[in-house]
Order: sequence, then structure tokens, then C-alpha cells
Amino acid sequence: MNKELKYKQVYGRIMELVENGTFHNNTKVPSVRDMSRQMNFSMMTVLEGYNRLVDDGILENREKSGFYVLPAEYRSEYGMSLPRPRFEQIDVYSSNMEIGEDFKNLLETSRRPDFIRLGSGSPSPEFFPGKELALHMSRAARNNFNEINLGNFNHGHAGLRKELSGLMMSGGTDVSHEDIIVTSGATQALLLALKAVTKPGDTVAVESPGYYGYFSLLEFLNIKIMEIPICPQSGLSLKDLETVLNKKKIAALITSPSFQNPTGATMTLEKRGKLCALASKFNLPVIEDDVFGELSFSGTRLPSLKSICQSNVIYISSLGKILAPGYRIGWISGGKYHKDIERCFDKGFFVQNQPCQYAAESFLKSESMNRHLKTLRRKYAENIRMFRNTICENFPSEILLSSPEGGVFLWMKLPDGVDSRDIAAAAAARKISIAPGVLFSSRGLYSGYVRLNAGVVWSSKVKDAIVVLGNITGDLQKK
Amino acid sequence: MNKELKYKQVYGRIMELVENGTFHNNTKVPSVRDMSRQMNFSMMTVLEGYNRLVDDGILENREKSGFYVLPAEYRSEYGMSLPRPRFEQIDVYSSNMEIGEDFKNLLETSRRPDFIRLGSGSPSPEFFPGKELALHMSRAARNNFNEINLGNFNHGHAGLRKELSGLMMSGGTDVSHEDIIVTSGATQALLLALKAVTKPGDTVAVESPGYYGYFSLLEFLNIKIMEIPICPQSGLSLKDLETVLNKKKIAALITSPSFQNPTGATMTLEKRGKLCALASKFNLPVIEDDVFGELSFSGTRLPSLKSICQSNVIYISSLGKILAPGYRIGWISGGKYHKDIERCFDKGFFVQNQPCQYAAESFLKSESMNRHLKTLRRKYAENIRMFRNTICENFPSEILLSSPEGGVFLWMKLPDGVDSRDIAAAAAARKISIAPGVLFSSRGLYSGYVRLNAGVVWSSKVKDAIVVLGNITGDLQKK
Repeated sequence: MNKELKYKQVYGRIMELVENGTFHNNTKVPSVRDMSRQMNFSMMTVLEGYNRLVDDGILENREKSGFYVLPAEYRSEYGMSLPRPRFEQIDVYSSNMEIGEDFKNLLETSRRPDFIRLGSGSPSPEFFPGKELALHMSRAARNNFNEINLGNFNHGHAGLRKELSGLMMSGGTDVSHEDIIVTSGATQALLLALKAVTKPGDTVAVESPGYYGYFSLLEFLNIKIMEIPICPQSGLSLKDLETVLNKKKIAALITSPSFQNPTGATMTLEKRGKLCALASKFNLPVIEDDVFGELSFSGTRLPSLKSICQSNVIYISSLGKILAPGYRIGWISGGKYHKDIERCFDKGFFVQNQPCQYAAESFLKSESMNRHLKTLRRKYAENIRMFRNTICENFPSEILLSSPEGGVFLWMKLPDGVDSRDIAAAAAARKISIAPGVLFSSRGLYSGYVRLNAGVVWSSKVKDAIVVLGNITGDLQKK
Repeated sequence: MNKELKYKQVYGRIMELVENGTFHNNTKVPSVRDMSRQMNFSMMTVLEGYNRLVDDGILENREKSGFYVLPAEYRSEYGMSLPRPRFEQIDVYSSNMEIGEDFKNLLETSRRPDFIRLGSGSPSPEFFPGKELALHMSRAARNNFNEINLGNFNHGHAGLRKELSGLMMSGGTDVSHEDIIVTSGATQALLLALKAVTKPGDTVAVESPGYYGYFSLLEFLNIKIMEIPICPQSGLSLKDLETVLNKKKIAALITSPSFQNPTGATMTLEKRGKLCALASKFNLPVIEDDVFGELSFSGTRLPSLKSICQSNVIYISSLGKILAPGYRIGWISGGKYHKDIERCFDKGFFVQNQPCQYAAESFLKSESMNRHLKTLRRKYAENIRMFRNTICENFPSEILLSSPEGGVFLWMKLPDGVDSRDIAAAAAARKISIAPGVLFSSRGLYSGYVRLNAGVVWSSKVKDAIVVLGNITGDLQKK
């Protein structure tokens, strides 16, 4: 038996004792030495298993005292039984296949306008200050009628870039507006980042489960996909990432450290530091997707990877989740890769339209932006609470549910044996959409999971839809 | 001596006699039989040479009567001595090199805002109804404040797609709005077209001289470039294209049949038909770039390739040259490749912003669009006339100048030995930009040429700039 399998036994043994209640909150687990004797493994192996449990938010390493079980309030019910892809599953997905029709249908259903769209990836427009934005657009268009109609070749309207730099600064990330390029949404920012640091046939690491838009974009660019497990408690599994980096050339990592889509995971501060160290050691370009970063329910945010490691991190974000989805304004700041990104931007002529940039600048400059963000965070937090309560009352008790501290998504593990595609089909007949878990892997994982978008205006209709989903799930469980 | 070299001798002999004035307008040239005896070549060889002269707009084949020299008014002074790249030069350009710093500097100089920008590729904003557009934007934003802020996943705002379909229809091209995708400018439309019909490493044929944006985009996509000569009289050389198609696998052709950038060439109707037949024979995807198509000075336009051959032609265009450069609205209609293009669009998430689409729809729907286009054509025609007159008065008599029937560009052959880069450098010191010919080849051709943008507001400053350019050229010629 090799070492890899041994430390998994350690991991499994502790998990078992936590899950069956033998180890309570704050229980001190056996010392590394004792456990090593009990299981007849080396101390190194036991330590490896314990460290993984720390990474995944199950144990806590109290300095000079030992390892303790984290109090339950720090472990979401969900985090405790995250389905980690087994190591054998961490393998390169060959991306030569087309996006399947199934996949396309699922996506289309999740977005149907006549549906209660709990499957959509975008919050409802009612969350955004549409009327006020329209006034800013109207004013910007009339005041700058010549400028907004100029065929331009720059990397974005300087006024907007300054505002975006200010927005980042207020979150603790110090980037000059000259190091920002405005793009058409975060996806085109990602496209530019990938073009700059990869070539066709390369392999890029992504979080698993992860945003389906990454998979399709990577396919579009003929890049292979390596899925790395993410823990909904503490974010990306760095151990798994390191294992992969030691074995294989990885051209870049895409990670969304704050309120990840779909799990809502937020990478711990400690892990952020470690990831930056890893990136530096392996000279790995890290693409940080921060589109949900502003949406912390408490209002505070952990330091971005970019703020920890300016050089190796390519930062991308957008206004799509926080202000104006219809404006398609994203941006990118590429650290030491920025010149390459600029070259790609120039070559592919990715210049953005002017009117949306002027209007967004005008809104960001106003007092309204701070007020709007505060309201938005409060509304999203309230919606997540309403969703969680209604789900707990109306779904079988066997489900597990994420408890995100920001963003708009809930990630739910279904009772054993229930396939989310069956729920999606039954829900579609009732004009309700959900995002089945299979969308969030390039390799067909997560069929037993569902992502729900809580970014819809709360109403009795929405509540009824959740009740219907709960009933469907219950019925499927009984079959 | 092989056949290829022989027919070039025939071509050269006739050209010589036309250029030295031995053959006048409407002169009947020796019959194929007589010429064959005179030069001791086969009749096939002579016919080949004559046919090329017909292709290039030098001779005319009058049915049952023979070959005649075209009247001078049908031959631009320029068309007569187009520097055809020799056949040996028709070769694949390996595009692994980066865009050079030189190239970048030349481009940047040509666009400097404090300059008289005769080197720019965009018309001045004063040619566009900026104030009126701003009102449409303002109204569209306020009337559709929710719609324009929706994160959307469709292929463009349906209302705009209908207007674009209508615009194409008024030019004789019948395409349903459902077969139109709205893109960020024509370049992204081209990117999607190329992604749909090529893969990295393929070779794509382009017109030479041709738009530098093509070269950089093809490099961006790791596609090799094959330059095919274009005749400023009659457009793309189909003989050369056919030669290439017989020798090599070409993944697609990019052609701009109306008022080509930089030459202003317009492909004859006969050639349009022949090109479509060739495309069908070789199953060649033809990407028709029609961004200047609306800018015919006479107001009439030849049928688009798309209207002749719906299936094989991928049509792309934009509002950038005719209405609103700052809006970055382009579109694409892909014939039998349309489904593949839609897939690429979805994969890469190329969704466009909403406000510009609603504003453009509103303007296109109004009475103003037709009026604006008429005014624009008249203004451009007038500017081209002023430019030509001022150039003829102030440049050395050895230059040759294009005489376009639409668009905004003039293409000038400099006196022998004068390099356009030297003119660009001397002009930059006087705050005037030009686009040196080397920009229009991926292989360093056309150093003896210049493109001028006549799409600037005519003024004494502009006139003075042309005088300065004429003096610089004269001085360089004397050296």
C-alpha cells in the first residue's frame, strides 16, 4: 500500500469518528504519535492525513497543543461531507468533444424567461438600479456625444479605469488604472488571460465543481481541463493542486477564491498565502476570478490573491454581478503577464464600446455606488436566508446545503440516488428551472447536486417553486 | 521555360505597348493566333496572358471580335501599373512571429489624437450624427431601463437584428434576422467566422494588399496567411486564387469585394459570380467583409457575394464605418457555417452589451438612417475629390493614385525609390500621420505605397498637411 492510500485511511478514520458523533466539537483527536501507533502508519503519513483535515475545515491545528475537531458552527453541515473526487479521478479531461446537446438544453432551460429561473447564473434585474443607471447613461450620452462615438483603440476609457482601480483599492487591492484593461465581461477577460499564458493543447487547472463557462471557454481555445477538488469550507484543495503540479505541466490555474460559483466557498486567508507561495514556486500563472468578491454579506472581504501576490496573479472581475449585467463590462489586470495580455487585446481588436463605459464611470463616481452595494449585500443575504429556511422546511432531511457568506448561489447535495437531471426535467414541466450539478464538471461529476440562484425577487411564487422542488425531490427519493 | 513564365511575357509585352501609348483606347490587340506566331508561343499560352489582362481590367474580350484595350476612363491610371506580387511570392507566410515593434509604432503614430490623422483607419466622428445618436441612446436607455440591464444569452437584441436584416435587404441581400448574430465590431465577427471554419495551423487566403487587422487576428489565432494579389480595378485575382487552391489546402478566404481597404478595389460582377463558383468547386468558406459596402458614391451597389451564394459565404459587416464607431456593433451571417458560428459564440460567451443595441435599433428604425447615409456618401465622395485634386497639384507627377468609387481611402504608389516609412517619419515630425504601405502586407511588401484616410473634415489644415506630404515626397525623391 503506498503512502497516498495510507493517509487517506487516516483521513477517513477521523471523518468517521466525527460523523458518527464519537468526536464532538473541540474534541482533541489522538496525537500524531498515538495515531501512528494505533494504525501502524508512519507519523509522516498521519500528519499528512491530519493536515488534509485541516485544509478541509474539519480539524484545527492549535499551536503546541494538537489537533482539535472544529466547532460545528464553523463547519457547515455541508462541508463535512463534501464529495471529494478521489485522487484517481484527478485526471486530464481531453476537451476535443463538443459541448453536448444535453448540456446545451440544460443551460437553455435554466435561462428560460417564462420560468421561475432558479437555474440562471444572473441575478434578476430588479436587484440593480436600472432607472438610475439609465439616467447616468442618458446624461453620459448627451454630455459626451462625440467621445462616445469615437472609434477608439485604447485599453478602455481612462475615466472608467480610474473608477475600477478605486473600487479594487477600496477592497484592499492596489492596482493602477494603467494596469487595467476593460473587456466585454469577465469571460472575455478570461479569454485574453488564457491566450496570453497558454497555447492550444496546454492543460489548465480549474476548481471542481466549477463554473461551466470556464469549461466551454477552455474547449473554445482547445485547452485541456484538469479539475481540482474544492472544499466548500476553505476553498481549493492545495494538496491536490500541489500533487498535480508535481506530476504535470499546468499552464495556469483559474480560481475564484471568494464566494465561488457554484459552492459559495471562500478560500481561507492561510490558504491564500500558501497558494501564492505555490504559484511562485512553480511559476504558475494564477487567474483570480473575483466577480463575486464584492458580495460579502458581512461587508468585509479577505485580501484578494492579487493583493498578496501582484506579479503572478492575473486579476479579472466584472460589473455583471454587482451593477449592470447588460453592460457587459469586465476588466483584467495581469501582473507580470500584463504586457502579453495587452498584445493579445491589440491583436484581436477587443476594444469595447464607449457608451457603457461612460455611463458606468458616471455611476461609479456617484454616491450611489456605495449605497447600492450595501443594499445589494443585505438583499442577497436576506434571500439566501429565506431560501435556506424554505428549503429546510420542504426538502427531505437527507439533503445537505451550503451556507455561503456571500454571493447569490446555494449548492445542495441531494439524497442518495436522486439525480438532479430528473429534478430539472420534472421542474421544467412546472416552469421552474434549476442548474443540475452535472453542469459544473467537464467530466459528468455532481449528478447528485443542484445549484440554486437565490438572486431572484422573493415572492410567494418563488416560495411555492421551492416547495414544488422539495416535493419533486421527495418523490424521486421514494422511487 | 515553363508555361507560367511564357504567359507572363505575353502579359508584359501587351502592358508595355499600352503603357508607352502604342496601343490606345479601344485598340484591338493582335489576335491570339497572330500573337502566338509573333512570340512563338502556343495559342493557349497567349490566351492565358490575354485572360489575365482581362482580369486585371486592361483588356476587354468583345465577343466574336477579339481583345481590345479598355478605354482609359475605365482603367484608373493606377490600375495600369499595379505591382503584382510575382507568383514566386505567393507563398505561405509563417505567422509564428510576433507583431513587430516597428509595426506597432507605425500603427500608433497613425492614430495619434494630436495629429492630422490621415493614417487612421476610422473616419472622424464629425461624419456621424453624434448628437442625434445620443438622443436615441438616451431615449432607449430610459424606455428600456430593465431590458438594457439584463444579462442576456441570446445572439443579439431581436429588434436590432431585424433592422440589420432590413439594411442588408435594402442592399439586395436577403438574410433572416434569425440568421444574424450581433458581435463586438466586424473583427470579432471575423474571429468567430475563423474559429468556426479553421483550426490552429491552417492557412487562410487574404487579399494583398489587405487590412492589417486581418494579419494580427490571424496571428492571434495561430493561422497561417496566404496573400493573394488584388487588382485595384477589378478586385481579387481569381487566377491566382485558383492556382493556390489547386496547390494547397486553404481553410478559408477573406475578401472585401466592395471598396476594399486599402486599395478601394471593387470586384466586378463577373468576378463575383466566378468566385462563388470557385468556392463551390473547392468547398471553400468565403468570408465576405462588407464594412464599406454601403459607401458607394453613386449610391448603387453590386450584389454582395452573400446574395449570389447564400450557403458558402459568411457575411460580416459593422456600423463602425457608417454610423457609430464607438458602439462597436458588428454582425455575422454564416450560411451553412452558421450553426458552427453560433456554437463558437456560445462557447466563448461573446454576448454583446444591450444599451448600444437598443440605441442603434432606435436610430436605424428612424427616418434619419437613409438621410444620414445619403449625406455620408456625398461627403466622402466630395472629400475623395478634394484629396485627389490637392494631391495631384502638390505631389511629384510620378505618383499613381487610386480612384475609388466608394469608401474613404486613397491608395498611392510613390515615385520609384521613395519609401513610405521615410515619409511617415518626416510627417510625424510635422504632426501628420499616414499609413505606410508595409502595414498592408504580412510580408513586408508595399513599402513604396501609402494609404490616406480621406474621412477627415476638410479644412485648410488638412490641405496644408497634404501640401507638406507632397513636399516631403518630392524631397525624398531627389535624394
